[in-house]
This record gives sequence, C-alpha cells and structure tokens, in this order.
Amino acid sequence: MKILAVETTATAASCCLTDDGRVLGRFAVNAGLTHSRTLLPMIEQLLGGCGVQPSEIDLYAVAAGPGSFTGVRIGVAAVKGLALPGNTPCVGVSTLAAMARLWDGVPMTATVCAAMDARCQQVYTALFAVKNGVVSRLTPDEAISLDELKDKLVAVDGPVVLMGDGAAVCAKAFTDLPNVTVAPAHLRMQDAVGVAAEAAVCAERGETVAAAELLPVYLRVPQAERELKARLAAEQNS
Amino acid sequence: MKILAVETTATAASCCLTDDGRVLGRFAVNAGLTHSRTLLPMIEQLLGGCGVQPSEIDLYAVAAGPGSFTGVRIGVAAVKGLALPGNTPCVGVSTLAAMARLWDGVPMTATVCAAMDARCQQVYTALFAVKNGVVSRLTPDEAISLDELKDKLVAVDGPVVLMGDGAAVCAKAFTDLPNVTVAPAHLRMQDAVGVAAEAAVCAERGETVAAAELLPVYLRVPQAERELKARLAAEQNS
Repeated sequence: MKILAVETTATAASCCLTDDGRVLGRFAVNAGLTHSRTLLPMIEQLLGGCGVQPSEIDLYAVAAGPGSFTGVRIGVAAVKGLALPGNTPCVGVSTLAAMARLWDGVPMTATVCAAMDARCQQVYTALFAVKNGVVSRLTPDEAISLDELKDKLVAVDGPVVLMGDGAAVCAKAFTDLPNVTVAPAHLRMQDAVGVAAEAAVCAERGETVAAAELLPVYLRVPQAERELKARLAAEQNS
Repeated sequence: MKILAVETTATAASCCLTDDGRVLGRFAVNAGLTHSRTLLPMIEQLLGGCGVQPSEIDLYAVAAGPGSFTGVRIGVAAVKGLALPGNTPCVGVSTLAAMARLWDGVPMTATVCAAMDARCQQVYTALFAVKNGVVSRLTPDEAISLDELKDKLVAVDGPVVLMGDGAAVCAKAFTDLPNVTVAPAHLRMQDAVGVAAEAAVCAERGETVAAAELLPVYLRVPQAERELKARLAAEQNS
C-alpha cells in the first residue's frame, strides 16, 4: 500500500512516500519558509524523484493536529485537494502519536515525551512508552502548562526522551530533572515518516475517511476565536 | 557551519543540508532510479526548498565508500563539481561510519552492524558500539564473507542491530542468532544525514580536503578490473 504523508504542524514541513512500510522517499525542510509556498512543490518533487504518479497513491495521510493552526490547515487542505480527484482514502493522525512512531523498532526502553510549543508557557504533549522498540501511548494528547508537564515527568521512572518543536523549551524548563534528555537532531522534529507509520496503523484499524470528512484537530480554540470571544464579551459588558 | 552531504553508495540516493548539527533539510529517494539522473535535481530542489544558495555552503560531504562502484563515483564526482567553483572544502567519509552516526544520541545500548551487499555472498561491513547514545567504532571497514561476519556476531554480547542495504541479506543468513534484529525502515538505509554528522566529526579533526583531492574508497578492486586481470592472465597462459 502506497502512503503519501504530509507534516506541516510547526515550522518544519515534510512529506514522504512509503510502500508497505518501506520508505520510497522523504523530503523535509526546516528553514523557516512558508508551508503554503513550499509544500506542494516538495510533494511534486518527491513524487517525481520516486517516479510515482499521484494516481498510484492508495492512502493520503496528514498530521491533523495538534499544532500551529495555520500549519495544520495547510496540511489538511493540501491532502484534501490531492485526495479528492481520485476519491482516495485519507487518514488524519495525531501529530504527537506520529512523532512517537519514529521510535518504532528502535531497540531502546524509555518514556518518550512528544512536546510542541503551544506558546504562553503551554505545550501540546503526550507521553509514550517505548519498550525495546514497541511504542504504546501512556497519556492522551493535551494542552497543558510546562509546570503540569514537569509534574508528570517527575513521576516517571527511567530515561525520558523529549522530542518535537517544543523539546528545546521543555529541556530549558526541566534542567533539574537528570533523567530527561533531548532526542538527536534527525529524530527530534515532527516528520512525515512518523505520520506514514501512524497512518498505516490507523488504516489497519479501518480508520480512514473520505477527503471531505478529513478535519483538523486543534485541542484548543484558535487564538483569533479566543480574541473574538473576549471582544464580544467585553462589548456586551460595556 | 553549513554542510551539504550526499549519499549514493547503493540503490537509495539522498542529500541533506545541516547547520551546526541542525537538519535544515533532507531529501531521500529509494525507488531504483539512476542516481546520475536524480541526484543533481534533488540537490537543487533541497537548496531551493531551504532557500540556501550553493555559495553559502561551508563544507561538502560525501559517502566515499565502500559501496557500489558506480554509485560512489557519481556521489564523489557530483561533490567535486559542486565544490570546485568556490574552492569549498570537502570531506569523504566512510559509508559505514556514516550509517552508525544515525544512532548518535539515541539512548540505547547495542552493537550496530553496518552491512552493505557486496554481492557474491560478501558484505562491506564494520561494527560499532552504541553506549547510551555514544557511537564508537569496534572494527575497521572490510569486505568479508557472510560466514566471517557471522563468526564476529556470534562473539557479541547483547543486542545487535543490522543496518544498511545489506541488512536484509544478513538477517536471512543469521536467523539462528536470536540477539540480531534489523533496524526500522526509516533508520535502516544509508542516508546523507549520517554523512553530514560523520563529516562534522571529521572536519572537527581537520580532515577536510580540496575538491581535486577527494577520492573514492573501494575496499575491493572493481569488477571490471578483476575481469580484465583474469582475462589478461588467461591470455598469457594460452
């Protein structure tokens, strides 16, 4: 099964093509450029590099959130557009679960803390157990404060590996936790390779949807909506 | 320091751009296409995706061997061509050492066996120790038979992780060694990300050369030369 996966939930953008678990190609860029400008050319160049036509894709996968609202929208919209013409099945996966998949098959035993910078001293985060290469979820995706996350990590026995675009801000806040380290650079950031791996698991469970049904998962109300709500409340009170 | 790294030693081709250890971009294709046709467009698309000009590259890195003779030549020739106009320093790294670098910083403890299919029941191989994320070399790069490699692995205590394009052929030959596993798909094949990491270590030690001095490392005499030698010997004896 050929899966084309897309990851645009933070400042890095990536896409990859897998075939029954084999990585046929991957293209990632983390250079602060706009995903709306870079993503579709990257997908086109990936498919061209692999000699694969869009009509050969069996499943489109996207990190549907949590993440940057604009980033998530760009990824989901791109995948909707790609999947619609051929009525190709889609799957939207948890950004955090996709990150943890990068440890699938890695013979280590640790707790993985996937963390994304949600601004305002908050993170989108979830914990996963990696036991000799088998990944399982420990906590749900949630938006919590750095202090709340720290309380969770203090309770963890054994090594903790931070990953995601929030790893750096977490590492800075948790310097007094000696069992916490940051994943190496090439395994730290969200990547479409993890999205494809998580999508394969979801597809196995029959969790695919049509392009029209694919939806972003925000976890929090977007800032614009929060500001609108606050302004409306203030106007009503004035 | 911006490093552009290239990997073309087997059927996969990849390039990546790092900046002081940060991965700015990576592009890999493993779809059986010809590197001579795909590599330079991939590098161009990677640089374009990252918004980086060739003139900004501080160091060119290439997996200089062992590997497919044609593959190694394409990688080395491409890097020579790219580095020559700006007289940019180059570094040719061991393909096997570059593979092992993918475990740098991964909190696991295992013996990594980097193995490339050298045909005729032979492998290019080297063993590396990974101790809680610190990689060190155990054996030199060598071309040996599968039986000779098996003898080495039988003597290893603890888990052994096979990687490289020879991992599959090794796994098939070593099914009776219970401590041997194959690295997960996204960390199995030679990749330019490992080349960049190994090149950074080499550059730190001052092991850079000018483009003109960059040379492939074959480990074995190329098949064409072996055949020529055999034919000349046969002619002399007739």
